[in-house]
Amino acid sequence: MGAASKLPNESKLSVKFYGSKKEALGNAVLHLTAVEISLDVDADRDGIVEKNNSNKASWKWGPNGHGAVLLVNCDSESYYKKRVDTEKEEISKGYHILESIFYIVAENMLLKLFMQDYPLVLNKEQLAAEVPYLGGNSELEFFVEGLRFPDKDFEGLVTISLSLLEPSAQVDFPETPIFTDKVVFRVAPWIMTPNTLKPVEVFVCSTSDNYEFLKGIRKMVQSSGYKLKICHEYMNRGDRWMQDEIEFGYIDSPHQRFPVVLDSPRDGDLQEFPYEVLLGPDFGYVTRYAQAEEVSSLDSFGNLEVSPPVTVNGKNYPLGRIIIGVAFPTTAHGRNMTKVVQDFLWAQKVQEPIALYSDWLVVGHVDEFMTFVPAPDRKGFRLLLASPDAAYTVFTNLQNNGHGKAKLFQGKGEEISVNEILSNEEFRAENIYVQSCIDWNRDVLKKELGLDEDDIIDLPILFKVMAEENRAVAYYPDMVNMIVLGTNLGIPKPFGPQVNGSCALETEMRSLLEPLGLNCTFIDDFASYHKLLGEVHCGSNVLREPFAFKWWNLEM
Amino acid sequence: MGAASKLPNESKLSVKFYGSKKEALGNAVLHLTAVEISLDVDADRDGIVEKNNSNKASWKWGPNGHGAVLLVNCDSESYYKKRVDTEKEEISKGYHILESIFYIVAENMLLKLFMQDYPLVLNKEQLAAEVPYLGGNSELEFFVEGLRFPDKDFEGLVTISLSLLEPSAQVDFPETPIFTDKVVFRVAPWIMTPNTLKPVEVFVCSTSDNYEFLKGIRKMVQSSGYKLKICHEYMNRGDRWMQDEIEFGYIDSPHQRFPVVLDSPRDGDLQEFPYEVLLGPDFGYVTRYAQAEEVSSLDSFGNLEVSPPVTVNGKNYPLGRIIIGVAFPTTAHGRNMTKVVQDFLWAQKVQEPIALYSDWLVVGHVDEFMTFVPAPDRKGFRLLLASPDAAYTVFTNLQNNGHGKAKLFQGKGEEISVNEILSNEEFRAENIYVQSCIDWNRDVLKKELGLDEDDIIDLPILFKVMAEENRAVAYYPDMVNMIVLGTNLGIPKPFGPQVNGSCALETEMRSLLEPLGLNCTFIDDFASYHKLLGEVHCGSNVLREPFAFKWWNLEM
Repeated sequence: MGAASKLPNESKLSVKFYGSKKEALGNAVLHLTAVEISLDVDADRDGIVEKNNSNKASWKWGPNGHGAVLLVNCDSESYYKKRVDTEKEEISKGYHILESIFYIVAENMLLKLFMQDYPLVLNKEQLAAEVPYLGGNSELEFFVEGLRFPDKDFEGLVTISLSLLEPSAQVDFPETPIFTDKVVFRVAPWIMTPNTLKPVEVFVCSTSDNYEFLKGIRKMVQSSGYKLKICHEYMNRGDRWMQDEIEFGYIDSPHQRFPVVLDSPRDGDLQEFPYEVLLGPDFGYVTRYAQAEEVSSLDSFGNLEVSPPVTVNGKNYPLGRIIIGVAFPTTAHGRNMTKVVQDFLWAQKVQEPIALYSDWLVVGHVDEFMTFVPAPDRKGFRLLLASPDAAYTVFTNLQNNGHGKAKLFQGKGEEISVNEILSNEEFRAENIYVQSCIDWNRDVLKKELGLDEDDIIDLPILFKVMAEENRAVAYYPDMVNMIVLGTNLGIPKPFGPQVNGSCALETEMRSLLEPLGLNCTFIDDFASYHKLLGEVHCGSNVLREPFAFKWWNLEM
Repeated sequence: MGAASKLPNESKLSVKFYGSKKEALGNAVLHLTAVEISLDVDADRDGIVEKNNSNKASWKWGPNGHGAVLLVNCDSESYYKKRVDTEKEEISKGYHILESIFYIVAENMLLKLFMQDYPLVLNKEQLAAEVPYLGGNSELEFFVEGLRFPDKDFEGLVTISLSLLEPSAQVDFPETPIFTDKVVFRVAPWIMTPNTLKPVEVFVCSTSDNYEFLKGIRKMVQSSGYKLKICHEYMNRGDRWMQDEIEFGYIDSPHQRFPVVLDSPRDGDLQEFPYEVLLGPDFGYVTRYAQAEEVSSLDSFGNLEVSPPVTVNGKNYPLGRIIIGVAFPTTAHGRNMTKVVQDFLWAQKVQEPIALYSDWLVVGHVDEFMTFVPAPDRKGFRLLLASPDAAYTVFTNLQNNGHGKAKLFQGKGEEISVNEILSNEEFRAENIYVQSCIDWNRDVLKKELGLDEDDIIDLPILFKVMAEENRAVAYYPDMVNMIVLGTNLGIPKPFGPQVNGSCALETEMRSLLEPLGLNCTFIDDFASYHKLLGEVHCGSNVLREPFAFKWWNLEM
C-alpha cells in the first residue's frame, strides 16, 4: 500500500488457496488498513519540525548532537492579568475516532501537551489521553511546553510517546499494542549574561535620597546609547538594591528565545518588582522558595555573577561560568547561598558554577571584590579584583612623593589624610587579612577560569573590619562594584586624596583601565549607597543580549 | 626555598633598607616557613595515586578523561558479624599541630574519610576536621569510601578539600585562608553482567519437591565446569525463585573490584539469603526500600535483565543496556517496577535502561519472553524471543506431515494432541494477542539495541490467557526462560509432541541453536517450577565475571 488509508479496511487483498497438487481449494479476502504514524519534532535543531528523524527519541549534546528543545512557558500571556503561564489550569478530555485507539502519553509530570481548539491536554493530572486519528496524510499539531526548569531532581529530559492500540473483539480482553512512537525533549536551561555582552536596558531604583546618583547613571546610560528603566518608589518602597532582588537571564531554543528573570528568595521591599513589572509576554519569571530561616544576605544576587566565556585546561565554557559566594569550606557556621538556589544553578549545567568565599564580608557578595570588563586583547576580558595591597602601594607612593597630607572624603565631613591611613597599624592588619581573603579567591578564579596574572587587574581599594562580627566592608566607595555598559564603566566615585586638583584614586583607575579602551565615569553614590554598604553595581541591573552561542552545541 | 620547612619560621631572609642616595637605613629579618600541600588521588585511573595531577579537581568520562574513582564500601568486614561497612559508627576528633591549621573538608554527606590508627573521621555528622601537619616531605594517608550509590538525587560526584589557615594574632579575629586544594571522586556505579559473560558460580534453591530439577542443573553446571551453590531450605523457607530475590552485579575501580548483590524489594521467603549468605568481605550488598504497597510481581528481578554490548545509531554501549518490564505506556492502572529501584537503575548511567512492556503476563517478567545467548558471528549474541507464531508454524507443519495426533505433556496427566491445539480458536486468539505484545517489545528492542532481524531467533512457545485477569502464562514449559552458561544452555524441558521418539519442540530448538555452537540441555522443571508459573531461569541465578571494559572509559 502506497499511502495511509482514509477509512478502515479500505483496501482488500484477494487470497487463493492451492493444494499440494496446485488445485484451487478456496478464496479469502484480506481487508487492509494502512496507518502511518510518526510523532515529529525538531530533532536537528534548525527551528523546523522534520519528518521522522531517526534520532528523535534520544538527546545528544554538541554541534553533531541531536534532540529537540523545549522551553519552560514561564512568561505571562498578558501584562495586565499576570500569571506565569505554567500555572494555568486546563480541562482535559479523551477522544475516540476510527476503530483504532491512539494514545499520547507524557512520561512524567514535567511537561504539558495540548492541541489548539481541541480539548486535549496532558499535564500533571493526566499523563495519557486518546487522540483523534484523522486518516490519510493529515497531521495533528500538538503544542508542548515545559513546566519546570532542570533542578536537582530533574535532569531536564522529557519523553512523549504515541501508541496505536487495537481494541479487542472480546469483552474485557486487553487492547492489543500495535505500534509506539517516541520523542524526547530537553528543557532549555536558564542562562546568565556576563558583562561582556551588549546591554539592552539598565534598571535602577528612584528613592527619596538618590537624585545625584540617578542623575549620574542617567547621563552615562544615555550617552552610551542604552535604555534606562527606573523603578519608582511606589514599587520599590525604598529598597534600592536592584542588583540584589533579581538576576537577568534568558532561555533559548531553535524556534524561540526570551529573557527570564530569576527572582531571589531575598524578598526585600523590591519583592514585587520582577513579577509585577518584568513578567509579561515573552518575558519569563522563575524563582525558588527557601525556608525563611535559611535566607541570608548571601542570597542576594549581588552574590551571583557570571564570567565571560573561558577555556580551562582544554575544556571550553563558551557561556562562561556562574560565580557565587559562600562560607569558607572549613566552617560549619558560615552563611551560604540557600540550597534551593544553589541546586537550581548547578542543575542548569551549561555555566558550571564556581563557589567563592564571600562570607568574610559583612554584606557577603562577590560583587564587592570582583567584576569583569571587556578587553580588546588576550581572552577578551579582564578580571578586576579589589586589592588593599594595590591601595597601600598608591598611598605609599603619594606619601613618598610629598602628598601625605592629601585628604580623602573631602566635603563628606569625615576627612582623613594619606599619612593618617598609612600610620594606622590596626587598619593595616585588617587590610592584610582582607587581602588574604581576596587572594584565596584569586587563586580559585585563576584555576577555575584558566586565568594568568596578566588577565587580572588589581584595583586600589581598602576595607575595614567591623568589630562586632569581624567581617569587612569597603572603606571608601568600592570601585570594583561598577556597572559595565560595553566599554563604558560607571564606577563609584571614591572621594580619594586630592592631588593637583584631581583624585589620585580616579587617576589610578583611569591609568589601569583606559589603555584597554575603557571609559571611566565616576558616579557619586556616597550618601545614598556607599554609606548603606552598597555601591553602583548593587544599585543597578542590566538586561543584556543573549549569547550568539547556542547552549545545545556545548560538548558536555 | 627548595623544600618544605621542618619547623615554623625555619628559614630567615635578611633585608637591608637603603635611602635614595643608597645610604644604609636599616635591617630586617624575614622569617619564612615553606609549606607544600597537595591532596593527591589517582586521577589518571592507573591504580596508583600520583603527585598533584592538574586534573584532580574535575571528572571527565572517556579514555582521554580523568578523575578519581571511589567505591561504596558495601561489603562486610566479616562473614560472622555481618554489617554493611557503610553502616558502621565512627568517633571523630580534631587535631592541632604546628602553628598553622589544616582543615580537611568533605563537600557533602556522601562519603567517609578516615586515617588509619588516627582518630580523624569525616562522615555524615562531621564534614570538616583539623588534620595534623607533619612538616617536611612527610605524607598523611587518608582513606576514603563512598557511602551511597549514585541515585536520583545524587549524581555520584564528591569533593574533598584541604585548606591551610593561619590563626589570627588578634582574639576573635577570623583565621586567614592561605591555600585550599581540592580533589573530586566519582562513586563507581553498580554494573550488571549479561549472559555473554563467563559464569563463576550458579545459585539454585533446594526444596522438598525439586530433586529432579536439582539433579538436572547439577549435571549441567558440573559438566560445564562451573561451581554450583545450593541455598538450602532452612534459608530459602520454600522460596525457590533464586532469580527474583537478587541481581548480581559488581563495582569497579582502578584499585579494586568486587561483586555486589542488589537485593529486590520483593522480599519473599528468600529475603535473608543475600544479606546472610552473600554479603561478606569483598562481596557487597545494596538494596532499595519501597513502600510496601508499591511492590508488585514486576519488582522481582526476573524482570531485570541486561543486554550484551551493542552499538545503536553510532552510539556505543560497551556494557550493554539494562532491560526492565513495566506497564504499557497508555495505562494508568498497570503494574510497574517500583520507583526507587527504577531511579537507582537509571542513576547508574553506564547501562542506560530500556523499559519493555511485561504487564501483559500474569507474573510480568521480561525473562518470560526474552533472553540473550552468545553467538560466534554478527554482534556476538542472539536475542531469543518467545513466539506463538513460530509455535503455530511448528504445529501446523507437524499436522501437515501426519503428526496431528502426536501428544504434548505425555506422562504429565494432561495430554493434548497437536490437532486439538490447532483447532482451538479461542486459544489461537489468545496467542495472536500474546504475539502482538511480544512484537511490540521486539520493535522496541530492535530500535533500542540496534538489532536486525537476523540478530533475533523466534522460539516456538505458546501462552494461554488467564480468564480472571486477562494476562498470559506459558502454556508448556517456557523454553526462553533458560540458564545460559557459556555455550551451554539449560532449557526447560517442554514436553512437546513426541514424533519418532523425540520431542518435536526440542528438535526445533536444537535446529535453531546448535548451528551457533550452543549445546541444549533440557531440564525437567515441570512440576516444581512450571506449574508454579516459573521455569529454569526463574529458579536460578549466575554470578558472572565482570566486563573487561572499564566503565570510566565510556564516552557519555
